[in-house]
Amino acid sequence: MTYTAPLKDMLFIMDHLADLQGLSQLPGFEEATRDTAQAVLEEAARFNQDVVAPLNVIGDREPSHWHHGNVTTTPGFRDAFRQFTEGGWQGVVHPQAYGGQGLPKLIATACTEMLNAASLSFALCPLLTDGVIEALLTAGSEAQKQRFVPHLLSGAWTGTMNLTEPQAGSDLALVRTRAEPQADGTYKLFGTKIFITYGEHDLAENIVHLVLARTPGAPEGVKGISLFIVPKFLVNDDGSLGARNDVHCVSIEHKLGIKASPTAVLQYGDHGGAMGTMIGEEGRGLEYMFIMMNAARFAVGMQGVAVADRATQHALAYARERVQSRPVDGSTKDPVTIVHHPDVKRMLLAMRAMTEGARALAYVAAAAHDRAHAHADSGERARQAAFYEFMVPVVKGWSTEMSVEVASLGIQVHGGMGFIEETGAAQYLRDARILPIYEGTTAIQANDLIGRKTVRDGGATAHAIAAQIAVTETELAQLDIPASRAMRQRLQAGREAFEQVVNFVVGQIKSHPNAVFAGSVPYLKLCGIVFSGWQLARALLASAALRETDPHFHDAKIITAHFFAEHILTQVPALRDAILSGGEAVDAMRPDMF
Amino acid sequence: MTYTAPLKDMLFIMDHLADLQGLSQLPGFEEATRDTAQAVLEEAARFNQDVVAPLNVIGDREPSHWHHGNVTTTPGFRDAFRQFTEGGWQGVVHPQAYGGQGLPKLIATACTEMLNAASLSFALCPLLTDGVIEALLTAGSEAQKQRFVPHLLSGAWTGTMNLTEPQAGSDLALVRTRAEPQADGTYKLFGTKIFITYGEHDLAENIVHLVLARTPGAPEGVKGISLFIVPKFLVNDDGSLGARNDVHCVSIEHKLGIKASPTAVLQYGDHGGAMGTMIGEEGRGLEYMFIMMNAARFAVGMQGVAVADRATQHALAYARERVQSRPVDGSTKDPVTIVHHPDVKRMLLAMRAMTEGARALAYVAAAAHDRAHAHADSGERARQAAFYEFMVPVVKGWSTEMSVEVASLGIQVHGGMGFIEETGAAQYLRDARILPIYEGTTAIQANDLIGRKTVRDGGATAHAIAAQIAVTETELAQLDIPASRAMRQRLQAGREAFEQVVNFVVGQIKSHPNAVFAGSVPYLKLCGIVFSGWQLARALLASAALRETDPHFHDAKIITAHFFAEHILTQVPALRDAILSGGEAVDAMRPDMF
Repeated sequence: MTYTAPLKDMLFIMDHLADLQGLSQLPGFEEATRDTAQAVLEEAARFNQDVVAPLNVIGDREPSHWHHGNVTTTPGFRDAFRQFTEGGWQGVVHPQAYGGQGLPKLIATACTEMLNAASLSFALCPLLTDGVIEALLTAGSEAQKQRFVPHLLSGAWTGTMNLTEPQAGSDLALVRTRAEPQADGTYKLFGTKIFITYGEHDLAENIVHLVLARTPGAPEGVKGISLFIVPKFLVNDDGSLGARNDVHCVSIEHKLGIKASPTAVLQYGDHGGAMGTMIGEEGRGLEYMFIMMNAARFAVGMQGVAVADRATQHALAYARERVQSRPVDGSTKDPVTIVHHPDVKRMLLAMRAMTEGARALAYVAAAAHDRAHAHADSGERARQAAFYEFMVPVVKGWSTEMSVEVASLGIQVHGGMGFIEETGAAQYLRDARILPIYEGTTAIQANDLIGRKTVRDGGATAHAIAAQIAVTETELAQLDIPASRAMRQRLQAGREAFEQVVNFVVGQIKSHPNAVFAGSVPYLKLCGIVFSGWQLARALLASAALRETDPHFHDAKIITAHFFAEHILTQVPALRDAILSGGEAVDAMRPDMF
Repeated sequence: MTYTAPLKDMLFIMDHLADLQGLSQLPGFEEATRDTAQAVLEEAARFNQDVVAPLNVIGDREPSHWHHGNVTTTPGFRDAFRQFTEGGWQGVVHPQAYGGQGLPKLIATACTEMLNAASLSFALCPLLTDGVIEALLTAGSEAQKQRFVPHLLSGAWTGTMNLTEPQAGSDLALVRTRAEPQADGTYKLFGTKIFITYGEHDLAENIVHLVLARTPGAPEGVKGISLFIVPKFLVNDDGSLGARNDVHCVSIEHKLGIKASPTAVLQYGDHGGAMGTMIGEEGRGLEYMFIMMNAARFAVGMQGVAVADRATQHALAYARERVQSRPVDGSTKDPVTIVHHPDVKRMLLAMRAMTEGARALAYVAAAAHDRAHAHADSGERARQAAFYEFMVPVVKGWSTEMSVEVASLGIQVHGGMGFIEETGAAQYLRDARILPIYEGTTAIQANDLIGRKTVRDGGATAHAIAAQIAVTETELAQLDIPASRAMRQRLQAGREAFEQVVNFVVGQIKSHPNAVFAGSVPYLKLCGIVFSGWQLARALLASAALRETDPHFHDAKIITAHFFAEHILTQVPALRDAILSGGEAVDAMRPDMF
């Protein structure tokens, strides 16, 4: 049940796919040298492997628990969180002005992956705090920033996102929590929020809740929603903590997985009103929330990569040790370790290929985010921003969907032992199963991918990505080995299918919206597979050039890409067909016919 | 969390796909009329809906537990089991000579599905007992049959299958349990068996263990294994129970799902030896075990159909009730129940289509089993037997793999609520996850499909099935509606891919065994999809002819088939490509390279 951070693959991606070298030459990222990146990653690996990873199983067996409004976290979490904050890990990507390290998202993404691979439940607290910091930095007043951000960065306080209510999940237009203005410019909040991750806990001295609520007389729907900051303990002008605010945790959920992460029901205003201050302008709450949602969605995508990697490591360790059955090729009469059997190899390669492909895609997207902020050329900034924005729903949706599949394969590799909880393989599936749901289900990601990311610019960003993929196909044509031939064939078919689907989506969205949205999730999956395959194709090219330097690593990389081409990219035409001709049957089935 | 047995679909399949009418004209099945079938199914539905289904959640929350060697089952199980046996449900398919009802497997299969949909955990006890009865009837001596079968049929005693040992799971050649012959012709058994379903419990007064063990001096490997009958309590000559035998339950497992079903570690012979008698001839134990395994594998396939149906019903009920978001086509400004949203419909249709396709395939296979036994013509018996044998690994492998996918989709339909255990959707995934593992993992089924079912007769049975599918394609061509056009196109592509793969498997098994077995599970899935699609195509044709009589049912059936064609059958070329060209990468990855 140990975890070994995949530092080699992380650095390979940074060096050869995400151009860390080029990134470190951009203004503001001068400190993000190769040496720094490696040092940060090695330190993160040590911390997460030694301190956090051992807590993962403990958190599953001794979940955080609620008693009279207080939540006691899993034994060991308080000490690990203290070490996390002392190590400065909350601030990796945040501005130095508030106490952060100001490193690129590319490097922070690797840190996020390691923390989540060590323990999804533990990592969720910093993940939400990151979102709160991001929202405050973007939309908060200078006073709000000064009052809250340094404490969030230091880890003295943590943050939460309060969106969901019993009747308002995917549809935030239905939010009913009220915020009543007071004479002093503050608000009193009243309402119930559910599914609040780390909404109550014992890791920090204060919890900063960001809450969506309606002001009196605000319009119906999303335009009437504003964003409020509601601390668990009020903060005095000198920064010290004041009275307990009127927000209380009335219960936490009994969940399938991530059991150490307390999922709170929070009651606001049962004793006179919870004091809050508005962030930014009235009626723009959802817009601000999307700032933190975008960061959180990307991070949840990394949770998918992380748990997939951990599940793969676990299954591989078992497959290397379990002896069962002779080889099918008759090469020996004795039973062998199951890692020799073709079907077990197929499963392990599928797990590895999907994980590495999703990782490469996410890191490349993170680097685009960095360039979108730091590049000197405004046109390039816009192109990089469009690329990143396109990738966010793909990274979130695909990495999490594949993580469920990978974790399930991990159980299968274990055979009967996989079903026994003590083995540990089942926890990854239980934990991973929330990832395609929270921070927006895969369908919500797919709606975003279609509406805001594909259709809004008439498919321009999508076709620009296709053109980049075509360049990689040309490069593959220069390399005459079986892996590159297979990859070129499958990647080309995948890219062409992607373009067909983009044209279908853009062309039919107005006239046949039901048909287009019946294919929304298949479209997202198609994008996830094609783009992951593209990054593995680029990895293949880089590894072919480098293989003499480290044949063990690069040969495996080439084979992994080859496998992805033949076993995963081959699924793309199926998804295309389902999208292009699958809408009619879905539309024909009236709700009353089920 | 209620369960409604899908009687209409079951009877539709029996009438129009499995030819119950024809079956009831075969010698021995005269009593299996349409009226009898309907009466038995309705009675089974009442019992399972009212008595067993409510126990499903209770079994998850209050699992069977172990104390000092005894196992207390979930509250309510004892009473339900008493009603199960009093209703004669253990004997539906077994000979009247021993107290059974002698009904066709076709009808028994529907009963099995309902019992398992009501509660997988509860149904496992009768499932294993069925296998023991089948093995005794086939290989037992007349004395053994008389002594054990009536008690097993009445439910006074239950049965278990003891194959697995810590070092011997998929590879039974590694079995080490010893059986030492005694002067009186009995044996004393010594060893440890694990993963023994209902190996100990409080539902019946005796437990009949069938145990694989080695006799002294027996050859290495599978040929040295014999089968023994080892009752928990010895049976006196007058049929009364005697002394406690030396087999003891030392623990039960803590599992991901099916928690009410006790999974025992059984220790044989720690106190002098467990008394057993040999079944059939020495050294033929594995052969006999395969008799019961074949029945059990088919039944586990039905467990897949069952839990998939229950998960679908659960998700549909939620989707009909949960209001969230406006329709994407703008048809109203108000939020609607989520069953109106295209992606939710897509998920529900996928769940329904996979479930109904797998059900139809299993029932058609069951009817072939009946004809293989009862048909007057020996050539027809052989053809039906070959068909059934081919289908067993497909029904087991595909129905269980798809059940995991369906249960996972069921969680997704629920959104965040799906992750909360109280909702009940998560249990189906946890329960279903064992199905592709026990009674032979999907890889083991796939090996059987390749070795014994496809290659042994040079692909003859496989090509005969393809020819039958081609007939259905011709019939589809006579019906000019969108659903039949789509189905014909996709089914033809699927059938052609199946034939290509069969030729590849038969042609390459000797020269490239590793490449063939790297595609074994994809081959099994391809078969599952093509054959399920074939049965839904036949259902489409029947429903098109009948739609006037019941448009609500038949239109939904036609749309379900249409959906299957465009969303599931479209996956077949991807599987074919992975099989035909995916072996090279798997082979290239040496175990040390992972």
